[in-house]
Amino acid sequence: MSNRAAVMTELEHIEIRELPEPEPGPRQAVVRIHAVGVCGSDTAYFKIGRIGDYVVDGPIVLGHEVSGEVAKVGSEVTNVSVGDRVAIEPGTPCRDCKECKAGRYHLCPDLVFLATPPYDGALMELMAIDARNLYPIPQEMSYEEGALLEPLSVGIWGCKRANLTAGDDVLVTGAGPVGLLAAATARAFGAGSVTVSDFSEFRIGLARKMGFATETPDAASDRTFDVLLECSGAQGALAAGMARLAPAGRAAMIGMPKQDVPLPLAELNVNEVSLSLVNRYNHTWPLAIELVSSGRIDVSELITHHFPLAESADALTLASRVKDSIKAVIHPQQ
Amino acid sequence: MSNRAAVMTELEHIEIRELPEPEPGPRQAVVRIHAVGVCGSDTAYFKIGRIGDYVVDGPIVLGHEVSGEVAKVGSEVTNVSVGDRVAIEPGTPCRDCKECKAGRYHLCPDLVFLATPPYDGALMELMAIDARNLYPIPQEMSYEEGALLEPLSVGIWGCKRANLTAGDDVLVTGAGPVGLLAAATARAFGAGSVTVSDFSEFRIGLARKMGFATETPDAASDRTFDVLLECSGAQGALAAGMARLAPAGRAAMIGMPKQDVPLPLAELNVNEVSLSLVNRYNHTWPLAIELVSSGRIDVSELITHHFPLAESADALTLASRVKDSIKAVIHPQQ
Amino acid sequence: MSNRAAVMTELEHIEIRELPEPEPGPRQAVVRIHAVGVCGSDTAYFKIGRIGDYVVDGPIVLGHEVSGEVAKVGSEVTNVSVGDRVAIEPGTPCRDCKECKAGRYHLCPDLVFLATPPYDGALMELMAIDARNLYPIPQEMSYEEGALLEPLSVGIWGCKRANLTAGDDVLVTGAGPVGLLAAATARAFGAGSVTVSDFSEFRIGLARKMGFATETPDAASDRTFDVLLECSGAQGALAAGMARLAPAGRAAMIGMPKQDVPLPLAELNVNEVSLSLVNRYNHTWPLAIELVSSGRIDVSELITHHFPLAESADALTLASRVKDSIKAVIHPQQ
Amino acid sequence: MSNRAAVMTELEHIEIRELPEPEPGPRQAVVRIHAVGVCGSDTAYFKIGRIGDYVVDGPIVLGHEVSGEVAKVGSEVTNVSVGDRVAIEPGTPCRDCKECKAGRYHLCPDLVFLATPPYDGALMELMAIDARNLYPIPQEMSYEEGALLEPLSVGIWGCKRANLTAGDDVLVTGAGPVGLLAAATARAFGAGSVTVSDFSEFRIGLARKMGFATETPDAASDRTFDVLLECSGAQGALAAGMARLAPAGRAAMIGMPKQDVPLPLAELNVNEVSLSLVNRYNHTWPLAIELVSSGRIDVSELITHHFPLAESADALTLASRVKDSIKAVIHPQQ
Repeated sequence: MSNRAAVMTELEHIEIRELPEPEPGPRQAVVRIHAVGVCGSDTAYFKIGRIGDYVVDGPIVLGHEVSGEVAKVGSEVTNVSVGDRVAIEPGTPCRDCKECKAGRYHLCPDLVFLATPPYDGALMELMAIDARNLYPIPQEMSYEEGALLEPLSVGIWGCKRANLTAGDDVLVTGAGPVGLLAAATARAFGAGSVTVSDFSEFRIGLARKMGFATETPDAASDRTFDVLLECSGAQGALAAGMARLAPAGRAAMIGMPKQDVPLPLAELNVNEVSLSLVNRYNHTWPLAIELVSSGRIDVSELITHHFPLAESADALTLASRVKDSIKAVIHPQQ
Repeated sequence: MSNRAAVMTELEHIEIRELPEPEPGPRQAVVRIHAVGVCGSDTAYFKIGRIGDYVVDGPIVLGHEVSGEVAKVGSEVTNVSVGDRVAIEPGTPCRDCKECKAGRYHLCPDLVFLATPPYDGALMELMAIDARNLYPIPQEMSYEEGALLEPLSVGIWGCKRANLTAGDDVLVTGAGPVGLLAAATARAFGAGSVTVSDFSEFRIGLARKMGFATETPDAASDRTFDVLLECSGAQGALAAGMARLAPAGRAAMIGMPKQDVPLPLAELNVNEVSLSLVNRYNHTWPLAIELVSSGRIDVSELITHHFPLAESADALTLASRVKDSIKAVIHPQQ
Repeated sequence: MSNRAAVMTELEHIEIRELPEPEPGPRQAVVRIHAVGVCGSDTAYFKIGRIGDYVVDGPIVLGHEVSGEVAKVGSEVTNVSVGDRVAIEPGTPCRDCKECKAGRYHLCPDLVFLATPPYDGALMELMAIDARNLYPIPQEMSYEEGALLEPLSVGIWGCKRANLTAGDDVLVTGAGPVGLLAAATARAFGAGSVTVSDFSEFRIGLARKMGFATETPDAASDRTFDVLLECSGAQGALAAGMARLAPAGRAAMIGMPKQDVPLPLAELNVNEVSLSLVNRYNHTWPLAIELVSSGRIDVSELITHHFPLAESADALTLASRVKDSIKAVIHPQQ
Repeated sequence: MSNRAAVMTELEHIEIRELPEPEPGPRQAVVRIHAVGVCGSDTAYFKIGRIGDYVVDGPIVLGHEVSGEVAKVGSEVTNVSVGDRVAIEPGTPCRDCKECKAGRYHLCPDLVFLATPPYDGALMELMAIDARNLYPIPQEMSYEEGALLEPLSVGIWGCKRANLTAGDDVLVTGAGPVGLLAAATARAFGAGSVTVSDFSEFRIGLARKMGFATETPDAASDRTFDVLLECSGAQGALAAGMARLAPAGRAAMIGMPKQDVPLPLAELNVNEVSLSLVNRYNHTWPLAIELVSSGRIDVSELITHHFPLAESADALTLASRVKDSIKAVIHPQQ
């Protein structure tokens, strides 16, 4: 079997290389990768080579929004079989540390995460991974949809971190893929109303098409909200959003601001609001599959572009074109 | 009956005036005030005439940490009787709004709070107040202790906002009255360990005497904590403290920083910590009375100075002397 | 103005009497009652004269699922105006006790509740009530729907008591009005799946029509659930339902069993399940209005019968006909 | 090395047999057992051979309250070293299933638990066990105390399941070892008051000596409580205790009633109380060690009898003598 991979050999450069065919360890499966969504973090590694303390140091394979078909399974694997169509949770925890024991495996200090230096990602034809990271998806769910369960998971976990409950009025700042999926999740969780805010006309238009109330940050209404889901990462967005929370309001910080974020705490404390930081997700795939397969969330609306493996570099630069793109999907078998 | 009051007529100036003897409304009581603790907010109004949006605009009576003896009751009062020794909760909510209905009466937008412009406080001999704000205190609790149930309430509510549970390792930054009482509350709540941090040698010494582990911010250990109670209000204290939280750690912001507080969210989100802002307290007097009367918290350790009513100005300037003072109590009947 | 009322003068007997026209107190409104749903508790008072410790002792007006139009307002009323179409929350709390202060006003020991001895209900043309119990409903919501916000509130609160969160697989036992509305609420809260169980073919058919999975208790599947909403009140339903909960499952007891309920705790504790009892609801009208007016819940599907005021006795006996009825509505203006 | 074990070969019969010296697997340690507390479940297996669905079927070694010294470690063990004094958590989870992943490893369907058929317990000189179940104890903690961290863990987890928070008034029904340790935990968690109830004069006397308020079930006061910790397992204790809960009170069922427990739900629902079942404990050893080593809980007060390994049968029959015994400890090295 061929196993081509898109290897980032230096900044803004991808080489297609043939890798050895992987063999699964006893608890691993080899997955034939069918769809890889491009995330802002992939683009960041591709363009500037780092995110915070994670620094690219040598060739790396990007891609962590992944689905495919099980091609081989190790001797001790029982949860999936060859031929299963699966979505992949990209983080593999140690299962032994205090965080894992407490059910917070996503905060495991030894978490191995796809496409996060020094670990490779999924832009390849065949990838070996712990079979416990694989979740079978139903026949009627496409591989593209399966890959997008990963950004949907970020939205789900953000809603959970914000303790979002039915009836909450929700403001989502930032209408990128994660913001739109967080908004869709909020609606699926029974939010009383969902308002999406962004500067981009293209993105706000898509939010409107998805059925959300919309506004631009510079022309915000003076209504208040119970929950803020900050998904833009813009430096001033969190403070501006928290100022619009009602008493006892809750904010979740899903975006990743590059700089320190200033908060006017003396003013914000009048309403005694809360802020929960968000680091990816914890055990969200079963719910993500349920929400998509039952039709309550349509992740395919976000997919604006498709690329074969050989054009991965084009896919990785697309994300900065906010004027006409939301989510690009790479197809490693093409 | 005489009813002298300490009236702040202009910045840094107190006049003792004779006020009319108050008559209680149907649901009010008149309390003979025996002890008033001086709070940093009293000092701020006295020296600079404002805290955030609350601006002193005309003569005002300060003081909201209060206890006394019931002197008269209105026709519909049933919860207290003349002669009862009582501690006073200083905020009177509307009882009708959405926040009141939800049990968050401390966030009531129409809250009437003692010594917060435009409302007078308790530096007077006789004060009328809603009888539902009065909590009888046991015979063996002194009036000074009764007054200090108010700052203790801040500590209790801060611990509740941080979801402090037994076994948590707790860091308290700032060893002023509220910080020390928050630390004492954390211990009474079953904290695994309590560490108090401050620059002042005098204050850190008192923390040590009260049995807490101590450190100075410039020589902090590298251990981690489950809970941060930020009580200093220093601009950098929150970020520094949150950086020391373990995964899933919780911070409560009890101090009141005058400027915006910068937070390095991209770094802090790795541990997925949470931040709860704190606005005073909600229904804490019964527990405060229990903790003090059972001996689990000794609030009297904090009282370093006493003043008669006529020397209120001296009491109000004392708080800035961090070298040798923690809490001053004014005795209006003296 | 006429003010006819349906007065239950003795068991199973209703007399239509002309009552004096009510005048609102300062904080009250007089409501022209347009729709009153018949509840199982109305039927119980009508047929056996008691529910637990609440005993009918003299003439009483039944009916507590109510909507109407504001006809007069007292001098201090600000939240509604004459002409407003309103749904009525039937319980008026004292607003002063410990429970009210904690936001649990529905557990107020002095709660005045419509149609609960010794208090009259709403089967009359004009009724005075605390205006704070009134919630304006939108123009497009019918009075029948407005009345059914009360049983919907029971379903909402049951879901909240069970900590129902998005993705939960939910079993609802008992497909009466409350069971069906609890099921509809569970779906609106984002439940992963909702299964409704009942012996009645008529009711199970309606559940199926509303889009729920269904089963009969004697032919239950062996799947497990995250949440049980017990709405039948049948003596064995709670134990049977709790036995089907997955580890850490949560049950809410919404039904009202007449006898003691035996629970095999030694077996149930293996899965460490939880049980929350339910006493009506707490602050659910805003969310109920939102869920109905946004189309996420259709309460009108439950209404099987209509009656004018003069036929209230017929309406009150209908509820035992489980073969062809779910919910009867009485129209006092007819 | 010798490795004598106390093997229960038939009901009420113990034989001391020499077992092969155990070798640790790669992630296991061999512990030289120094203290084993006798639990009511050991006695039940010894006398009637079963607890619910767990049936003794062949020779078994009892004992799951255990401490000792590490004698050997497997090749991959890093958390303990030879010579460490350790307490042992007796349950070994699979670490892979849904429950383990969610942090509820104690509900793992494949949990291997000491002295629970078909698994042997710790009444032996040398025992191999997963090293991740071992918690080093400080030098000043005795092995007897180390063994009693297990029943203390039951008390801790019961308090957590009841959401016990500082200030709660707590009723503990049943003053056996678990009841007394649950009461001690409640106090350490900041309970406002702790009342212990039992029929046995001896046990109630010990509760009084430990500083708790006491009462007998037949002469109970009419005060109410926020939290009930039912530790007796008596059939009527849960209903009687829940009837004494204040509105929104919480009960945890720690005892193990042999028969169905009848609950008068129609009466109990007025106060909207909650009931949490309890299955052992989840990650309680670190807190248990902290509470004992800091002196906040003295588990040694409960130890009334000591036995060498050869007299295990005597120890196992002692527990029914409620007139003068609480907790027996067996010393396998003697």
